[in-house]
Amino acid sequence: MKKVRLALCQINPTVGDLSGNVKKIIERINKLGEYLPDIIVFPELAVTGYPPEDLLLKPHFIDDNIEALQEIQKSVGDFIAIVGFVDKSEDIYNAAAVIHQGKLLDVYHKIHLPNYGVFDEFRYFKPGKRYPVYKMGAIKFGINICEDIWYPDGPASVQASHGAEFIININASPYHMGKAGTRFKMLSTRASDNSLVIAYLNTVGGQDELVFDGHSLVINEHAGLIAEGKCFAEDDIVIDICLEEAFMKRLHAPHDREVAGPADNYQIDEIVIDHGPLKNEDVLVPAAMRGTVRSVCDAGPATNGEIYNALVLGTRDYVVKNGFGKVCIGLSGGIDSSLVAAIAVDAIGNDNVTGIFMPTHFTSAESREDAYALAEHLGIMILEIPIRPVLDAYLSSLKPHFRELPPGIAEENLQARIRGNILMGMSNKFGWLVLTTGNKSEMSVGYATLYGDMAGGFAPIKDVPKTLVFKLSEWKNIDSGKSVIPERVLTKAPTAELRFDQKDTDSLPPYEILDPILKAYIEDDRSYEEILNLGFDSDCIKKVIALVDLSEYKRRQSPPGIKITPRAFGRDRRFPITNRYRNY
Amino acid sequence: MKKVRLALCQINPTVGDLSGNVKKIIERINKLGEYLPDIIVFPELAVTGYPPEDLLLKPHFIDDNIEALQEIQKSVGDFIAIVGFVDKSEDIYNAAAVIHQGKLLDVYHKIHLPNYGVFDEFRYFKPGKRYPVYKMGAIKFGINICEDIWYPDGPASVQASHGAEFIININASPYHMGKAGTRFKMLSTRASDNSLVIAYLNTVGGQDELVFDGHSLVINEHAGLIAEGKCFAEDDIVIDICLEEAFMKRLHAPHDREVAGPADNYQIDEIVIDHGPLKNEDVLVPAAMRGTVRSVCDAGPATNGEIYNALVLGTRDYVVKNGFGKVCIGLSGGIDSSLVAAIAVDAIGNDNVTGIFMPTHFTSAESREDAYALAEHLGIMILEIPIRPVLDAYLSSLKPHFRELPPGIAEENLQARIRGNILMGMSNKFGWLVLTTGNKSEMSVGYATLYGDMAGGFAPIKDVPKTLVFKLSEWKNIDSGKSVIPERVLTKAPTAELRFDQKDTDSLPPYEILDPILKAYIEDDRSYEEILNLGFDSDCIKKVIALVDLSEYKRRQSPPGIKITPRAFGRDRRFPITNRYRNY
Repeated sequence: MKKVRLALCQINPTVGDLSGNVKKIIERINKLGEYLPDIIVFPELAVTGYPPEDLLLKPHFIDDNIEALQEIQKSVGDFIAIVGFVDKSEDIYNAAAVIHQGKLLDVYHKIHLPNYGVFDEFRYFKPGKRYPVYKMGAIKFGINICEDIWYPDGPASVQASHGAEFIININASPYHMGKAGTRFKMLSTRASDNSLVIAYLNTVGGQDELVFDGHSLVINEHAGLIAEGKCFAEDDIVIDICLEEAFMKRLHAPHDREVAGPADNYQIDEIVIDHGPLKNEDVLVPAAMRGTVRSVCDAGPATNGEIYNALVLGTRDYVVKNGFGKVCIGLSGGIDSSLVAAIAVDAIGNDNVTGIFMPTHFTSAESREDAYALAEHLGIMILEIPIRPVLDAYLSSLKPHFRELPPGIAEENLQARIRGNILMGMSNKFGWLVLTTGNKSEMSVGYATLYGDMAGGFAPIKDVPKTLVFKLSEWKNIDSGKSVIPERVLTKAPTAELRFDQKDTDSLPPYEILDPILKAYIEDDRSYEEILNLGFDSDCIKKVIALVDLSEYKRRQSPPGIKITPRAFGRDRRFPITNRYRNY
Repeated sequence: MKKVRLALCQINPTVGDLSGNVKKIIERINKLGEYLPDIIVFPELAVTGYPPEDLLLKPHFIDDNIEALQEIQKSVGDFIAIVGFVDKSEDIYNAAAVIHQGKLLDVYHKIHLPNYGVFDEFRYFKPGKRYPVYKMGAIKFGINICEDIWYPDGPASVQASHGAEFIININASPYHMGKAGTRFKMLSTRASDNSLVIAYLNTVGGQDELVFDGHSLVINEHAGLIAEGKCFAEDDIVIDICLEEAFMKRLHAPHDREVAGPADNYQIDEIVIDHGPLKNEDVLVPAAMRGTVRSVCDAGPATNGEIYNALVLGTRDYVVKNGFGKVCIGLSGGIDSSLVAAIAVDAIGNDNVTGIFMPTHFTSAESREDAYALAEHLGIMILEIPIRPVLDAYLSSLKPHFRELPPGIAEENLQARIRGNILMGMSNKFGWLVLTTGNKSEMSVGYATLYGDMAGGFAPIKDVPKTLVFKLSEWKNIDSGKSVIPERVLTKAPTAELRFDQKDTDSLPPYEILDPILKAYIEDDRSYEEILNLGFDSDCIKKVIALVDLSEYKRRQSPPGIKITPRAFGRDRRFPITNRYRNY
């Protein structure tokens, strides 16, 4: 039987950690080598981590990454290793090294460079123009990188039309809700269209605003899912791929004979690898390593569990990769801080999380009870630091300058800022990272205080709309089999408690109305007219759009948070602060 | 004599202000029409302002910009108007409209899209492939946009080889130190190489982190500068260009016969404009409007006056275009806040600037005297708000939680944060914009307190290294003919005054050593080895590099400031926070 054994290493590299990433890669090579794979595969830019951003403008960084690759080469024996790195010749390329017996056999250069959303690859890389096909005994295969596979007339198609029977596609593809389904549809279509087996390997882990979900896939020429990597965790998949069917399918449905290749100059190479498929039938791969198919990828919309896990991994990796051991969170007794605390505990453990409750005279008894109940359920330390004395000191210092004007935003923001200062004080004193608790609805309309509740190093739920905060909290309780987040927190009306009897709805439309307007405006770039046609109230839409536009200056100073929607704030949405455009 | 009369309108549009920009453009058309120009020219993306960033992802914004262009068309009579806008067909283009007698004659699409530094044009636009040459009576000319002219084999060369005798190049080219000289050298080479007259029109004004310097140039076929627009101010230049010489030069030195055009498919059109050069000899253009040549562009390195003016314009436009009338600044008696206050006064007038002096027990008598002297010299209001009472309130609230640990960074930062809160309190109460006073040296090494002295809406000297802060302050005093900034401020040792007898040099190398290391590392992307070879101390370099890398998280939350160096923080330098790369 014509077959090949692939080992897909879904690893979690760290940006810039060349020696750490090399160590991780060599460990996988040594471990998985036991199963005699023909090919061991690592993700896109596995050597540098993704995205290295402007580190790529440093020539010494490029050189160090090449030295790191040479270190990896030495550990490659009688099999093929495919490793993502930055290649350097007359320019730099997002590349895949093809290594065999310690030698660099070939280098593939990514052809289609993404330059939208969070991606800036035209800023750094030159696109490749070469479509190599590798011949290994009777088997032919192609390699390409991430974005390449998204083009129907891209390298996979060209490589297939030149005989490739399977494609190895290495990725650093960030998560957002619903992406798994989109990916699976595209990959299965691509596999079927070109009568190919596709081994899609994705990196995993958090990097600043991004979280890579792993969730590698192997899909056969009939669009069938044959193996699946874990979501949001490192994983190794060792799988035997049968290649009899791909050629058979081509004879029976030879669509791909028509493929002419891209219009511009391009180059097809056939590269012969002196390596037949190994005799590895006797070496059994444990079932747990075969990438059991759970079919989570075509389940339609994202599940709450999937989103929650993305937030946990993104938070853990930000904390750990930046060298922090512990975090602190301002607990208000409200749902946002409760959810963030739950995420933090799942990310780094209850012993490493401290809640700080900072009441004023506006704080209700319920808020205190709920904050303490949450801390108890999570098993985290809770400190109480009342802010009234500091507030009074500010107000008396400012009284002569506030000119008898009535209390308002200035006084409300002071409370939030005192809390921010106390959290930062504890951070400075004990080296804790402050997690902020703002959600996407608040970030969108600026319902947050700069240097107040926005003060902190990382914002786990920054891209989570308030209505989803509720759903994730409910899911967390169901998943835990108990009310980790106190039930009352899920039912009481949201309030900032910066004045007596304040409710979020005093300033904002109800979240069930606000959130769909925000999605239409921010994620879908709909106009005022189009949102009106969705059935929302005209004045409400106008108010929301104006708030979003006018609070760009706040978002520009907000801490990074985890992207979970198709358009997050931060690198993903680049908006001018100075902007007089009004679309109504 | 074969001649053409050009009117170059160096205007200051505002991003997104379509109706305001249209009004400004029509006003110039009406005013300059009196001089019977053959061609009236407006800058790149004059209709939308530059850069519109992700506004370009909104289809309704594109449509509104096209409606705005149609409004402009109506005001164009018997002459040609060239106006930068966003064209829409199967995709969107960075484009120049060629308008005549109310009709859109042609549209040029920018061919070379910048996607480095602060530019993201591949994120938005499709590159053009067409090289039109316009024929107007006996005269032939070409149009191209900004980046296009930086390519030696780009459109200017192709258009010249197809008969164009002059080129109109419209720009939104942001300022940085030394760029004027680079631009002039390139443009004069391009003009001479191709035997062309080049009319280079640049936009002017501040937009968030960018300041456009205007400084439009007209250069003849012998590389001679024949007209120059104002720097950092709106300007109109009406100039008669003689075109006899360009053809003569081609006959005598026909280098450009060799030009073959770009390698890829491209399209040359000759478009005949039914408009002979006008009989406008009798209409005299006042000398002041002829773009007097001051030769400031090939003066070599940037002058202090030029940099100062860039900061003034950038600050004014941020304040005014965002709808603020007044600003406040924390005055410490030190040089940074003194320079920022001077810039603010020059930007928006002394009546609109309030200094706030916030002493503690660590504040020296000299600092108080210097802050008051500065306020008096500038004629600004100064308020004094001591922060000791608030600090004591914090310390007593935190005492039980700080666990008897010795005072340190936490206590120092608290002082800076109290000041930040007071400034923000005044901002919230009175609607003043807070200007922060941090310089580039501090921003680089993180010698600043998040939510403390970094709190504010705009950071005028964020990209000015400390050594340049001194030079600009000295220049300001010389230019004013008096010590606006008190002399002692220029001579005393810099200190943050957050503990007794503190000096910046307790924590940092002297600025004369720090600044060149920072330039090598940040602007020039030099490695540790390379910086060592410049002659600096090894430990000092290591410390500085580590500080720069580790304070990326602070910079990510800093307010925008004006780019004046070839690499500023912000959109210009995109660095990961999570980054374990160490180059030593």
